[in-house]
Order: sequence, then structure tokens, then C-alpha cells
Amino acid sequence: MTLTPLDSQLWARLFGSPVAQAHLADDALIAAMIQVEIALGHALEACEITAPGTGKAIETALADVKPEISELAETAASDGVPIPALLSVLRTSLSGEALDALHWGATSQDIVDTAMVLCLRDFKRALLDQANDLIDRIALLAGQEAETLQLARTRTQGAVPTTFGSTLSVWGAGLLEAAEAVSSSVDELAVVSLYGAAGNDSVLAGDAPDVRLAMAEALKIGVDQAPWHTRRARISAFAGAMTALATQAGRIASDLAFLASTGINEVSFAGGRSSAMPYKVNPVRAEAAQSLARFSVHLQGAVAESAIHGSQRDGVAWSLEWLALRPLCGTAAAALDNIDKIIETLQINRDAMAKNLKSVGPVALSEMLTYRLSQGMPRSDARKAVAAALGSDNPLETLKTNHPGTDWTGVEDWISATGRAPHIARAFASSRGHER
Amino acid sequence: MTLTPLDSQLWARLFGSPVAQAHLADDALIAAMIQVEIALGHALEACEITAPGTGKAIETALADVKPEISELAETAASDGVPIPALLSVLRTSLSGEALDALHWGATSQDIVDTAMVLCLRDFKRALLDQANDLIDRIALLAGQEAETLQLARTRTQGAVPTTFGSTLSVWGAGLLEAAEAVSSSVDELAVVSLYGAAGNDSVLAGDAPDVRLAMAEALKIGVDQAPWHTRRARISAFAGAMTALATQAGRIASDLAFLASTGINEVSFAGGRSSAMPYKVNPVRAEAAQSLARFSVHLQGAVAESAIHGSQRDGVAWSLEWLALRPLCGTAAAALDNIDKIIETLQINRDAMAKNLKSVGPVALSEMLTYRLSQGMPRSDARKAVAAALGSDNPLETLKTNHPGTDWTGVEDWISATGRAPHIARAFASSRGHER
Amino acid sequence: MTLTPLDSQLWARLFGSPVAQAHLADDALIAAMIQVEIALGHALEACEITAPGTGKAIETALADVKPEISELAETAASDGVPIPALLSVLRTSLSGEALDALHWGATSQDIVDTAMVLCLRDFKRALLDQANDLIDRIALLAGQEAETLQLARTRTQGAVPTTFGSTLSVWGAGLLEAAEAVSSSVDELAVVSLYGAAGNDSVLAGDAPDVRLAMAEALKIGVDQAPWHTRRARISAFAGAMTALATQAGRIASDLAFLASTGINEVSFAGGRSSAMPYKVNPVRAEAAQSLARFSVHLQGAVAESAIHGSQRDGVAWSLEWLALRPLCGTAAAALDNIDKIIETLQINRDAMAKNLKSVGPVALSEMLTYRLSQGMPRSDARKAVAAALGSDNPLETLKTNHPGTDWTGVEDWISATGRAPHIARAFASSRGHER
Amino acid sequence: MTLTPLDSQLWARLFGSPVAQAHLADDALIAAMIQVEIALGHALEACEITAPGTGKAIETALADVKPEISELAETAASDGVPIPALLSVLRTSLSGEALDALHWGATSQDIVDTAMVLCLRDFKRALLDQANDLIDRIALLAGQEAETLQLARTRTQGAVPTTFGSTLSVWGAGLLEAAEAVSSSVDELAVVSLYGAAGNDSVLAGDAPDVRLAMAEALKIGVDQAPWHTRRARISAFAGAMTALATQAGRIASDLAFLASTGINEVSFAGGRSSAMPYKVNPVRAEAAQSLARFSVHLQGAVAESAIHGSQRDGVAWSLEWLALRPLCGTAAAALDNIDKIIETLQINRDAMAKNLKSVGPVALSEMLTYRLSQGMPRSDARKAVAAALGSDNPLETLKTNHPGTDWTGVEDWISATGRAPHIARAFASSRGHER
Repeated sequence: MTLTPLDSQLWARLFGSPVAQAHLADDALIAAMIQVEIALGHALEACEITAPGTGKAIETALADVKPEISELAETAASDGVPIPALLSVLRTSLSGEALDALHWGATSQDIVDTAMVLCLRDFKRALLDQANDLIDRIALLAGQEAETLQLARTRTQGAVPTTFGSTLSVWGAGLLEAAEAVSSSVDELAVVSLYGAAGNDSVLAGDAPDVRLAMAEALKIGVDQAPWHTRRARISAFAGAMTALATQAGRIASDLAFLASTGINEVSFAGGRSSAMPYKVNPVRAEAAQSLARFSVHLQGAVAESAIHGSQRDGVAWSLEWLALRPLCGTAAAALDNIDKIIETLQINRDAMAKNLKSVGPVALSEMLTYRLSQGMPRSDARKAVAAALGSDNPLETLKTNHPGTDWTGVEDWISATGRAPHIARAFASSRGHER
Repeated sequence: MTLTPLDSQLWARLFGSPVAQAHLADDALIAAMIQVEIALGHALEACEITAPGTGKAIETALADVKPEISELAETAASDGVPIPALLSVLRTSLSGEALDALHWGATSQDIVDTAMVLCLRDFKRALLDQANDLIDRIALLAGQEAETLQLARTRTQGAVPTTFGSTLSVWGAGLLEAAEAVSSSVDELAVVSLYGAAGNDSVLAGDAPDVRLAMAEALKIGVDQAPWHTRRARISAFAGAMTALATQAGRIASDLAFLASTGINEVSFAGGRSSAMPYKVNPVRAEAAQSLARFSVHLQGAVAESAIHGSQRDGVAWSLEWLALRPLCGTAAAALDNIDKIIETLQINRDAMAKNLKSVGPVALSEMLTYRLSQGMPRSDARKAVAAALGSDNPLETLKTNHPGTDWTGVEDWISATGRAPHIARAFASSRGHER
Repeated sequence: MTLTPLDSQLWARLFGSPVAQAHLADDALIAAMIQVEIALGHALEACEITAPGTGKAIETALADVKPEISELAETAASDGVPIPALLSVLRTSLSGEALDALHWGATSQDIVDTAMVLCLRDFKRALLDQANDLIDRIALLAGQEAETLQLARTRTQGAVPTTFGSTLSVWGAGLLEAAEAVSSSVDELAVVSLYGAAGNDSVLAGDAPDVRLAMAEALKIGVDQAPWHTRRARISAFAGAMTALATQAGRIASDLAFLASTGINEVSFAGGRSSAMPYKVNPVRAEAAQSLARFSVHLQGAVAESAIHGSQRDGVAWSLEWLALRPLCGTAAAALDNIDKIIETLQINRDAMAKNLKSVGPVALSEMLTYRLSQGMPRSDARKAVAAALGSDNPLETLKTNHPGTDWTGVEDWISATGRAPHIARAFASSRGHER
Repeated sequence: MTLTPLDSQLWARLFGSPVAQAHLADDALIAAMIQVEIALGHALEACEITAPGTGKAIETALADVKPEISELAETAASDGVPIPALLSVLRTSLSGEALDALHWGATSQDIVDTAMVLCLRDFKRALLDQANDLIDRIALLAGQEAETLQLARTRTQGAVPTTFGSTLSVWGAGLLEAAEAVSSSVDELAVVSLYGAAGNDSVLAGDAPDVRLAMAEALKIGVDQAPWHTRRARISAFAGAMTALATQAGRIASDLAFLASTGINEVSFAGGRSSAMPYKVNPVRAEAAQSLARFSVHLQGAVAESAIHGSQRDGVAWSLEWLALRPLCGTAAAALDNIDKIIETLQINRDAMAKNLKSVGPVALSEMLTYRLSQGMPRSDARKAVAAALGSDNPLETLKTNHPGTDWTGVEDWISATGRAPHIARAFASSRGHER
């Protein structure tokens, strides 16, 4: 049983993330640790530090080992790291020179950190596949709704006309920006760690750079000659990018929940039923995405703080990172999931959008009317003329009558007051391969 | 498999809390929800709102129902709350008037919130039993070490002599204060919720106060006539108290890790072994307690923020509370657990304590020497005389020679420079029933 | 010039708090430190530790000293605490025995901590005066609007009828609860500190309890025999209470901003004008109160974390507390200020409230209709009958026709579906002295 | 007077940052807003939207305007943004076509956001100058101390020999990484904002891209065709980078405070004096840097959260960003300042470093001894032989006697057990231009 909804069987479909569970749960991490030991075995042999054949022997022996988590738990707790317990298990499958070669030159943190970046890299790929699909679907909608009139709201107040396609493109652009930040931050942090107990290559000495390079090539990740045991800015940046993704999901969710609220009704989507009030459809997924977004901020704070390491290796900072980093990934991924599921069932109520816009009245057109008039008079005069006309019964007729020389073509069509909103929407659709 | 070490089988013994799992995991929460529905059934009958016998019928039918979590998961996710799914399961055990009476007058949040406070109350009891045992053991040690000389360190610098018993009593007093805050905050928040969909007793109307009272008596918790669906300051206060407990554990852990560090060596305790460096004993539990303490602060931030509810009931704020509250409890309880386990194996190195103190030299006695001298001269003169003597080869002899009229009794015994430290230690021991 | 809006001349009226500035700014803190040194002077004399007359001499000499902040800045920075610099200034006004007696037995932290609690106590009084006035005004409105129909919204969806008076009473009850938490937390923490360099009464020894008591009486605060140099749970609890106040203000602001938003329009209040869109009234103060509430959560996190002290006195934790505690007070007070100013100009649009409620349709009455019908039939049957009737053209007529035996008195008046909302509103008004 | 030490005259030299005050205080921000209006004036003219000469006229009239902050405060508060008040002031200096052209096409947020990025860009330049100087000095020291033996400490325990130069290079590499992250994040976010009231170019329409481009060129910042009114991931990333810088400073400070602590004494630096204990030197700046680092994490949490915008423009999220962003910059810059000042007076105690290392005993050499032996036997046998020898009176002699065939050259010199530490130190020095 679990305390946290992120890991809960009860809440798996609302606050859980299958993608995060697949790539970041304890078993994935343990499997990655074994993969790192195998890569180290090959690299040591390739650099002629261990005997010929030991790399292959280690790989053969360990490739299919799946330790029982329960076997590792007690020692993991007393050692504060699962590597010694894992090595004990692995050693039972090895003998002779291969046994001797296992883990040579590494400290526990090297293995755990490298395993973690492998898991994060795989998680990132799966997450970004999902994010890109979602962005594509939002872009398709943006193109379809490029000219769907909607009231732009600024600081909660009806402002000027825009289009729902433009609104969608802003959502999509934000997701894209955050997804790109996640991608580049993982590229940055996916670096092998192999620096030994004190981060100074104390065992491998002059061979260390070559062994690191060989491992990095085998694992298809990067290499860095300076130890990052206590230098965690890249992890902080990754956590920041995950939070940017979660808060962008939260931002979209906040808009969706508002647009679906009673009295606004511009969209609807599958939601929660109330036993007492069957006429309600609670925007459950939009609520969850907002909660997850807010929660991600606090988890990310813990990761950011965990950058304050001490001395050559620091058990406090490192375990604070563990406590927060994978839950943060799960939180962000679950927030994205919820947006995904909302978009799947999204119903757009174009009539309500038009009605809410029109209810503001011609005043919402003032900016556009002023602009048209200002083609033939100073802007300050145009502002005054528009303000005066808006006080009349039929502002548009008043303006046409009083200013016959102005180009009033299409002025009744509120789309003419949406600036480049249709263009913005179509440009975003087009950028994702959706033809106009 | 899990993402968070709090719920992880791998990390259960370092970052997990058996007490939190026992009382706060999903199954405990679901069981409490059933208990609340039963109490409501009795209360409705007692207030003559439902038919005679329905309370007993509901209790009989539901007392042993243990729904499969997996049965509830899908509906919990789509509804954003597990109650409708739970009611579906429960209804299969009921018929007729009892079926009709089930859940009458309640909204889902009433049941979940009341169940949560029941779980927190039970968790609190178990946690405080553990905390009190720990405080007792610290108090016993404080009494035993009341006169064990130790260097007081302020702002990282050796300051004046104190005793380890006094240090222990400060740790214990802090735990006691935090434990009392946890206790009183749970007493405050353990209040039945039964206010209906909009928090205005819309179904039970004038009967609502009596039904709430009957439920509260049955569940042995408090009652409050104003709805707390969106009024969460009591939950924030509880979260603050849990964090106070965790940070107090973190504070003790920080001291212990420093005192156990190489070069200080004033204490030692069971810890982690390093395969590469078998001479090291890593203070794993003191590190974990510090990490958990720091982590608790961030989880508590999420709970504090979740007080910002909206309208009559708010799905965003409420689920943010869920995401953070139980993990916070687990975090604080695990931090306490780690201190517990450290104290169990604590070795006190009195020689090292004395040696570290003495290494500061007689200068550490200046305050006491000044005080003695100042009995017979202005303090500023005494300060100067002490400073001068400290420049000589044997400061104590110099002072005795130069100021024969001063009472120098026991001045060689550094315990005389520890102020009331022995008294403070013994008073704390005595306050916990340990005779002097 | 300033970086933070809390202290900015530009933002003083939106994000600043006059009450916090008056009682908590640097000059107030320095003045309180002098007040503490004076109280210590008297206490030492009263306990016959210093010469007769020294207390009065210190008071006379120091009562009107107002050091230039700029005089203290350099030394405050190099010492990490302003006391040595302040003492240098104060000593220039003293001589002889009074000079000798100044600060005897105290460590810098004793003076700063005691001064801080004096400032917090005075701040609390002024803040609660303001909070109580505000709660009174909300209570008055609650009484006036006890029967003003409003749509209860749960999870963003129109739920059932309630009254605006009831909504107001929930806001007021939340403020009251938070204000009481602030009050009691300050009562708890307002305790003299006088424990000397290592927290063990190393100078005052057996006299320490009497001196503390005398100081506490002079300063009208409490006394505690155990040192709290590193035991800060009371400060964390106070910070939690301030955050509860800020988040309650934020919660009210969130509701107000929603109720004032275009398309809802249930309230309006003085707000920001847009040069481009003069028809908008931006709910600036409701936005600021929400921002301040969210911000308070993060500042409070820093205070909570600062409880992790080390050794006998800790410069890191203590200065982290300084960085966050007074800004938190200013943030919470400014949030309250903004609610205050909104309530001053609040316009209640009863017609819009009624219209928004009625727009949900008779379905909003289902709960009440079911309740009435269930007086004469099983609830499940009543639910079905109501659901069927709601499918007809005139649900109320259908029900009356089909179920003539039911008491339908007043059913057309939606107030009958608001449960105890009018009662709840009036009870709150009455609790604050507003007769019904 | 101020509440926050960041802005306090009293604390300016410890918690304040002159660089942040110079570039980010309110007056710098107001000046940048004027600069943006001037750039807009030129851009509109260049795009033939406004009359010839208006750009120059606006520049001439406004270039030297320095509004009194007090003039702006009242309107800033009521409008929630200082632009309307600023425009009122600016308009008094303009007339005719220039007056008409001022601010055309912009919304307040466009001006404030663009002004903010200008200020951040200038702040960044000054901050990185300082950071680079500091990194250079650390690199110089790293080269000088490349072979200074020091005990590597991992998880608080003495581990293996390293060199202080290597320690310094890890500090410097961390600062460099964070400084680069700050630099690139500012390059990313320094983008003009000019999208109009609803972010859809509603006034400038098809001309908007050209006007943005012209403004961007004039202000020497970037351009982005999609509105970023509510898309703030770039600001979050910048806040993350500032926090990375602060936490890296905090990490260095934590090490320095530990190394300077009584009983370790490996370094010393100018610090705080205690009136009662003149023999102490409190590591005030190392404490402040740690406090500031921890504080930065919480401020950054507020910035990260402020990414959750709503609708087309959001007053809550935007003002939350204001509350935290500039204080975060000041916090990080002040943390860096404190490291700067520590390094200026740093005294390296090579004898204490050597003594602390040697006190661990030959056991600290086990890894190196095992490595040497393992050249001629299996590693597991070598481990056992070393362990056995360490139990003897003179482990090195025992090994030499028992294993005469092994190359024991230089084994008495502990530098041979520091792996590549000297190389790492020199490589870092060299990378910053310090010849070996």
C-alpha cells in the first residue's frame, strides 16, 4: 500500500504516470545499474585494465539477473545505497577474473548516477513522444479553430476579440517550449559518472579518461572529465524543465477548467459525475493537472536545494535528490497525461464562445474602430470619436455616418478585430505539419 | 513498483515509515471511509431521519467489506474521488431501507475528510508513542551524561565548555515541543465533516447539527457547526507540526553527523559500510533524517498552499492536499524512525569530547575566569586581566598569583565553567521520570 | 531603491504593509534591542548582580538613543549580527558601573531574539485590530445578505442554491480561525531569551532563572527555562499561522476575482483601469492578494526550513530565518490589506447572482425536491421521480400533479433549497455582535 | 525602512548585492521602461506607422525624464502596473504627433516585460564579470594548491587522500557551469514583447512582426513571433540558473565553513568577532552564503509557480513573478559576493590539511596499496593482503617485506594516492589561463 497518490494503485489513472513507472520505478533503476556494471566491465577490458574476456563474461552472467527488491532492501537501508547489496547478488553469478573485474574503479555513486541518467534518457524519449503527439493534436485543433471567435480575457476581464485557434496555439507553443527544454536538459545531463571514491580517479588514475569514454560510447551517453558527484546544476536544470512542462500543463488545465465552468461553458470534456448532482460534470482531469502542476513546484524546490552538496560526496544532498527527482518526473508526466485525456474528449462550444464575446458589446471593438479611424486623424481624436459613438444606440452606424471617409469594410464581422489571431493559429498548425 | 522512496520496498527501512503505512496507506483510508458511512448510518437513525434498524443493518453489512483497490481505481480516477465507486461496492451488500439510508445527507468530501482525520488521529497516537519512547531514552542519556564535558560550538567555532547531557536535553526538549504540537494540532483538526454538497446543510437542514454531533460521538472526534470543506487552516497547522517534528529530527541528525565526522569523533553509531573503504562508517541514518527533514519542508509548502480553496468546494486545492499530506506524514515519521535507530546504537566517546574541548585551550574558560574576577573588580578590568593572563604560559597560575583574593576553588575543573549545563541535563531527565 | 515589491516605494500601496513597516522594519527592531538591553539592566540590578542604580542609569542613558542605521551597517555585516555595533554606540552614552553592567550575561542572539518577539507581539496587536475590523464588516455583510440567493459552485460547476451571506460567513470564519492562530502563536513565542553564549547560563548560572523572570515581567512577555536559541518550532508555528492568514486572504481574493469576472459579474469593486480598454475594471487588489498568498507559502517554507539548526548556536539557520520571517509578515499583512480595501468598495450585484443561479434551471433544485418527496417514499424512488419530472416541460408542476400528497409549500421560492444557509449567515453576523 | 535584509541598509553589506541594486532596483526598471517606449517610438516610425520625426521627438523629450517614484506609486497600486502612471508623466513632455505615437500598439505588459529583460541582461553582464573574476582567482589557487595534500571526505567520513587544488577545481567548475547557465538563459529570455492587449497583434496586425524586429534591433535583444505574455518557461529557466549559482555558492560556503570549523581548521578567513569570546572568528560570510542559497530555493519556487498563467494575460501569476524574481537575483548575487569576499582573505592551513589526512592513518592508503599489489595478483587477494598488513604495526614495511616483487616506488609519499587530483587541479587552472 502507498501513501502517495503518485504511486497508488487507487489513483494510478489520475495522478500516476505509466511512462514514469515504466522507466523510473525501482526495478528499472536496478536494471540500469546492472547495465552500467556491464558497460564498465567491457570498458575496463577494452582499456586492458582487466583480463581479456572479462567484459563478455560479466555481460553473460549478469544480463538476465533480476534481483528481488526484497533481497536488497535491508542492506540498501543500512548502507544508504543499494550498490553493495546488488554487488553481493551479482557476485554469486561470477567467478575468477570476471569476479575480480566487477565494479573496479567505481564508487557506488558512479553506478547509481549513471544508471539514473540512463533511466531519465529513456523516460524522456517516451515522454516526448507523448508530448509531441499532444502538441500535434493541439495544432490540428488550432488550425481548425483559427477563425472561431472567442473573447480574450485579460486579468479576468473581457478584453478584445480573439479566436480559439489562437488560444490553442499559445497552449501548444508553451508545451513545445517546455518539451524542448526537457529534451535539451536530458541531453546535457546524460553523462557517464566514473570518478572513484573521492572524484579524483584515485584507482584508475591515468586510465580513467579512456574508461569513461568507452563506457559512454557503450551506453550512448556523453562524457565529462570533471567529476559531477557534487556538481548537480544539470540535474537542477532538468528538474526545472520538468516543472516547466508540468506548469504549462497546469496553465492549460486552468484555462480549460475556467472555460468549462458553469456560466462560461465554452468547452466541455469527459469528467466526474456527482451522485447527488447528476447534472454536473466535474472537470476532474483539469483539476488534477493543476494540482500536479502546483505540486511539481514544491518537489522541484527539493531538487534545487539538493544541489547544496558538501565535501567530496554528500549523503544528505544526494538522498534529498532521490526523494524528489523521480516523484517530480511522475508528477509532470501525470499532468501531461491529464491534458492528453482532456483533449481526446474536448467538445468546443462555438456558440457559447460567440455569445460570451458578443455579450461584452461593441465596446470590445473600440481598439479596432480607433485604429480604423486613426488612419485619417490623430489617434487621440480617433479615441474620442469612438468613445462618443459607443455612447450612442448603434455605435457602428454612428461612426459610419460621422466618418464616411473611413474604410469600414467588414467592420460588422468581429473577426476583423482579432488582429493576427487567425494567422497565429494557422502558423502554429502549419509548423506541426497541418496544412492550412 | 514505485517512484518515491517513501513508498518503496527497496527503501522501506530507510525512508519508509511502518507507522505511517499502517495508518495512512490507501487501504487504511478506504477502511476509515466505510467506518464513517457506518457512523453516519447510526447517526441518521438516532436522529430519526432514517428508519429504525438501518444503522445496525448498515454496520452489519459493511463492517467486514474490504473492497479491492483495483475495483475502485477506474471510477476514482474518472470521478476524482473514490466515494462513488466505494458506494457502488457497498450498495451491493445492502437492500431496502438500509440501502436507502446509506450516505444520506453527505457529500463525497464529507466522507473523505472525516475518514482522513480518523486516520490522522490513529497515526498520531502511534507516532507519539514512538516519539515519547525516544524522548524518554534521550532524557535517560541526558541524566547519565549530565557532567560529561563537551565543547559548545556556536557558529561552527569552539565556544565555551558545556556538557553532553545538556546537548541531549536540548535535543529532547525540541522533540517534546514538536510532539506536543503534533498532538494538539490533531486534536484540533479531528472534527467530523457533514455539511452536504454546498456546505450549507442543504439536505439535512435543521437536523444537521444533531446528526453531526451523533457522528462525532460515535467516532470519538470533535464537531464544528461551520463547514470546513474549504477552510483548511487546521490542516496547515497539522502539516506545520509534522514538519516541526521532521526538522527537529533533522536538527538532531545534523548534530549527530557532525559529532560522528572524522576529526571530531565524539559519537559513533551503526552505519553504512563502503566496499572500497571498509574503515569508514557512513552515518547513513543521520543523513537520511536530514534529507527527510529538508524534504518535509517542501511537502509542507504544498499543503500550506492547498489552503487556497475556491468557491464552495474546490477540486484543485483538495487534490493538492492529497498529493502532499500523507507523504509529509510518512516523511516526518521516517525521520523520527532514523533518530530512534541511531540512539539505539549510540556510542558516546567521552574522551574525544574532553580532548576536543581541551584543545581549545584555557581561552575557553575566559568567560568563567572573568566572572570570578569580576566579583572583586569592575567587569571591564576583569576582562583585561583575563586577557593578559591568557597571554602567559600558565594562565590559571598567573591569575591565582596576581589575584589571590579571588575565590578560585575548583577552577581547574572545567565543569565549573559549564554554567547550569549539568542542572539543565538533570532537570530534563527528571521531567521524564528519570531520577537523578 | 529596492528589489522587492514588499519594501518598494513604488509598490507600497499594493504589496506593502504599513502595519508591518511600522512594527517590523529595521529601525523598530533596533529600538527593541535597546529596550531589551534596558530591561536586562534593570533585571540584573533587581537580582543584585549589578550595582544599585545601574538599571536606571542604563535606561536614562539609552532611552532616547536612536543609532543611525548607517553607523551599524559595516560592523553588522562583518559580525553577522548588529549587536556588537549597537553596543559600541550605546557604550558611548554610558560610564562606570552602568557601562560595566550593560549586556552582562547575554549573548547577541539573546538580545536579537527577544527584540524580535517584542516586535512580533506589537505587530500582531496592530494586525489583529485590522483583521477584527475586517471580520466585523464581513459579518455585517453576511447578515445583510443572509437570504441573497447565489449559485453554490463546487469543482467549478453550478451545484445547488445557497446564499451570498453564507458564502461571506465562510470567508469570515476562515479569517477568524487564522487570526486566532496568529494570536495564540505569538502568545506562545513571546518568550524572553537570556541563556548566554552556549545556552547553558554559563555566566549567570544559578541567577539566570531570576534574571529571566525579571526581564520577562518588565517586557510583559513569557519565560522558559530551556534555551530556545536552536529550538524554533514556535517560530515555525507563527510563520504557519501568518501563512494561514495570507492563504485565507488569497482564498477570498480568488473567489472575489471569479465573482467579478466578465460573464459572472456577481460583484464589483474598485480596480485598475486599462488605457487601451477603458471599459475594463481589473480586479487588481484581488490579484495582488492571491499573489501575496502564493508568495507567503514560499517564504514560510524558508522559515520552516530554518528550524534545522546545528550545535549550540547556528548562524546559517538563524540568518535564513531573518531573510524570510519579516518579509512573510509583510506579505500576509499586505494580503489582508487588499481584502480590506476590496470590502470597502464592494458592490453586490444581487440580480446577477439570481440570474446565474436560475440559469442552471430547476435541476439545481433536485436535491430539495428529492428530500421533500422522500418524506413519503423511499429515497431511491424519490430520486427517480424527480429525475423523470426534470425531463418534463415544467418539472415543479409535474411533481405537484403526480405527487399531490407531498408538502410543496414554498417550493417555487428557491430560498427553500438553500438548507441552513440563511441561518449560517445570521449566526456568523450575530457572533460578531450584529443583531439579526 | 525595510523588512527584508536583501534591501536593508543595515544588512546591505552582507545580504545585499550592489550589482543587483544597480541594475534591478525600481529606478533601473522605470528607466528601462522609458527606454522601451523610446525604442517603440523609433520602430513605429521606421515601419511608417507613425509620422516621420516622431521617434526622434519621443527620444528627445523622454531621454532625460526621471519620474519621481512617489509620483507613480498611487496609480501603480490602483492599476496594478506602473505604465499608466508613467505614461501620464511622459505625456506632459510630448505634444502633437509624438504624443499621439507614444505607446501605440503596446499593452502595459509589453513594456514592463521588455524593460525587465533589458534590466536582466545588464544585470547578467555585471554579475558574470564578477563571477568570472572569482572563478579566475579560484583557478589560480587550484593551480597553486595542486599538490597540497588534503583528506577527501565522503559522507562526513575521512575517505582517501586528495589535494586541496582538486577541491578548489570542483568548486570552480561548479561556479563556471552555473555562470554559463545564467548566461545562456538570459540570452534566451532577452526577447522583445510587443503583442498588444490580447497577444494577437490586435492593433498592429500585419505590421507587428516588423515593428518587433525594429525594436529588437534597437534594444539589441531577440525577437519571437509568438506572444510570451503567459508563456514564462524562459523566465523559470533563468530563475533556475540563478538558483544554481546561489546553491553552488552555498555549496562552496558549506565546505568553507566546515574546513574553518574548530577541530578541522584547514582554512581561515575574515569573519565575525564575538564580544564575549574574542578568540572566536565566526565564518559569517560562509554562513550568509549558505542562508542565501537556501533562501534562493524558496524564491525560485515562487517564480516556477508563477508560470501557471491563465487566459490571455494573468495579473496573479505576473505579480507573483514580480514578488520573487528580482529578490531571487539579489539573493544569488549576494551569495556570490560573499564567496568573493571569503576568497579575498582566505588563509590555507597546509599543515592542518596534512595533519588531518595523516590522522586517518595508513588505512587511507588501502585503495592505492591494493591497486599496486593487484598488478601482480588477483584484486581480491590484494585486498586481503592489504587488510592483513594494515593490522600490523607498520603496514607499509609489512607489505614491502611480504611482496618484494611489487613496485612500491614513492609509496611513502601520500601524493601517490591522490589519483589524478594534481592533474585535475592544474587542468582547471590552465583552462582559465593560469600556466602550470
